Amino acid sequence: MRSDATPADPAEQAARSWRSTALLADGREILYFDESPGLNRAAITDKRDLPAHDAVAALRWDPLAGEPVMYAAQRQDRLFHPAAGSCPLCPSKPGHHTEIPAPGYDVVVFENRFPALAGPAGGRCEVVCFTADHEGSFAGLDPRRVRTVFDAWADRTAELGALPGVKHVYCFENRGEEIGVTLHHPHGQVYAFPFVPPRVSRLLARAGAHRAATGRNLFDDVVAAELADGRRIVARNDHWVAFVPEAARWPFEVMIFPCVRVPDLPAVPGPGRDGFGPVYQDVLGRLDALFAAPMPYIAAWQQAPSAEEGEAGQAGADDDAIAGRAEFGLHLHVMAIRRAEGKLKYAAGTESGVDAWSNDVLPEKAAHMLRSPTP
Amino acid sequence: MRSDATPADPAEQAARSWRSTALLADGREILYFDESPGLNRAAITDKRDLPAHDAVAALRWDPLAGEPVMYAAQRQDRLFHPAAGSCPLCPSKPGHHTEIPAPGYDVVVFENRFPALAGPAGGRCEVVCFTADHEGSFAGLDPRRVRTVFDAWADRTAELGALPGVKHVYCFENRGEEIGVTLHHPHGQVYAFPFVPPRVSRLLARAGAHRAATGRNLFDDVVAAELADGRRIVARNDHWVAFVPEAARWPFEVMIFPCVRVPDLPAVPGPGRDGFGPVYQDVLGRLDALFAAPMPYIAAWQQAPSAEEGEAGQAGADDDAIAGRAEFGLHLHVMAIRRAEGKLKYAAGTESGVDAWSNDVLPEKAAHMLRSPTP
Repeated sequence: MRSDATPADPAEQAARSWRSTALLADGREILYFDESPGLNRAAITDKRDLPAHDAVAALRWDPLAGEPVMYAAQRQDRLFHPAAGSCPLCPSKPGHHTEIPAPGYDVVVFENRFPALAGPAGGRCEVVCFTADHEGSFAGLDPRRVRTVFDAWADRTAELGALPGVKHVYCFENRGEEIGVTLHHPHGQVYAFPFVPPRVSRLLARAGAHRAATGRNLFDDVVAAELADGRRIVARNDHWVAFVPEAARWPFEVMIFPCVRVPDLPAVPGPGRDGFGPVYQDVLGRLDALFAAPMPYIAAWQQAPSAEEGEAGQAGADDDAIAGRAEFGLHLHVMAIRRAEGKLKYAAGTESGVDAWSNDVLPEKAAHMLRSPTP
Repeated sequence: MRSDATPADPAEQAARSWRSTALLADGREILYFDESPGLNRAAITDKRDLPAHDAVAALRWDPLAGEPVMYAAQRQDRLFHPAAGSCPLCPSKPGHHTEIPAPGYDVVVFENRFPALAGPAGGRCEVVCFTADHEGSFAGLDPRRVRTVFDAWADRTAELGALPGVKHVYCFENRGEEIGVTLHHPHGQVYAFPFVPPRVSRLLARAGAHRAATGRNLFDDVVAAELADGRRIVARNDHWVAFVPEAARWPFEVMIFPCVRVPDLPAVPGPGRDGFGPVYQDVLGRLDALFAAPMPYIAAWQQAPSAEEGEAGQAGADDDAIAGRAEFGLHLHVMAIRRAEGKLKYAAGTESGVDAWSNDVLPEKAAHMLRSPTP
């Protein structure tokens, strides 16, 4: 257990959160990102009697598609829609010990008890709680909290990305029972993959080919084309722009790019981190206002693979991979799955069978609906 | 309207179905595959007063992923869980005119009224009704009917694949409300794509690389490895073998390969077509027996792209593409989405976000559960 509460991002003048770490009763790590100093979270012990954490996960290789598949058989036993009173993501209180031993928190990150990545297969899975308020949502966080969550994502990307064998860090949120969420407390997840996931590999390959063919960056060209067209822009400020992509797959799909391209979350400077919340929360509010029920969505940070150790100036390194990493354009990819009142989009026969997507909502119409004044 | 009812597959000695075609009131084509001759379906007129069929579909190109996306905005108006009495896939009867003007049928295929592919974008979408029995299921079809459905799939693959601009014919069934099925009458679909869908492209590229590296066929090697291992075999006969793939993505995923590799459905000879039903229906029965409710699934025929016109002996043709086509190994890919009693597998954050799949059920365990005696 460490007690060295330190500013979460010492290199960043605008850093406004304090990180402290501790261990849970079964040996898993927990990290607090507090918005005020001196809370001494490291001294808080987990009073539960848990067996030692020995998660078994396996990684296999699909010989037909040439892609990895993760196995987490013990996840079948994970909590499934627990009652609010027994939520494992709420702060602990007398008589109810949760995954978070503290009696309150701002943002907390801990190793997942039922990980899809662990052990010999490598990698790590973490849970990120956005607020101690069980009934909250990302859309309802106060601006400073969004910044703290952003700092936590950047922290995890940098720290997990530096672990041996970790090739990519993926930060995401699943929201809504309709997309399979089993715990309703507002939270996201971080996967530190021991491989570069297929979509990231494909985008990098596409960006490399685009650079070779045009001399330009693929992500820059896509964002510039959306800005020039304008019909699919949903929201923007000085730091971020949100649009429905021209070839959206989901009925209400939004990509949020920084106005200046960076490869990953740690590379976003302080003002950009502060500027993210107003655009993203505006988009989330518009998604929730479309239909009677809150919008179920996946929010996926698409970012570059982890930097290779000793990348800078390293002679003989894989030049292609390094060039590829620098070509990546960080963006948040929001996939909202309700296509109409009471109707969901399913990734069924064409999508799951042969990766051919069909969408019932034209992107221009989706953007128009999202731009309409919220009630 | 044509009245030339002919054996569905004149080149095939074992053909036992008779095909006749007609037009629906709005100009869409309908094809009957009957198990007895002389029913004169072509003389049956559609008595509905339908506006001319002018489906608008669009095809766009996703610049980031480099993949096509289909748009079918008018599909938002399609029927959504109609009551059994107003099912559009039942035969017509006095006072209830459906999509099938005939008072009964064995297997019927017609152009989808709400296609994701149509018009200038090219391609075509069809619906395949497996039985006139609204309450039936593929698992419950009699053996001869399965053969008739197989003949219909092969017929559509050959005929649609020969249309100008069609690059791939995809036959599939979505089964179950849980996967988004909006019509409960037992039916599947056929998509004639104006592109080679991404998964098929990837499998072909992988097969080409495997041939270059090993001199062997990728699909043959995968099937041989499953047979040699044996732990994941679920069912087999002289013509087909069904197994849970070693790196399955879905909790209960089964691939059914012919024992002798062929590139597509038309290439399966008569005895193989007759032998398919016993293995596939055995698998479906085992899937349905796993949990209290019937298993929701996607059943996807993975087959080669359409042959290029003049492929045989054509000088100067794209040798790689032709070689690739011949390398493909036809198989039925069954993706069952219930992971436990009352629990579904969702393609959420890791799957939909970055194409990294995780599975809660180890393939050996899934195969063991499927092999256990059915009640």
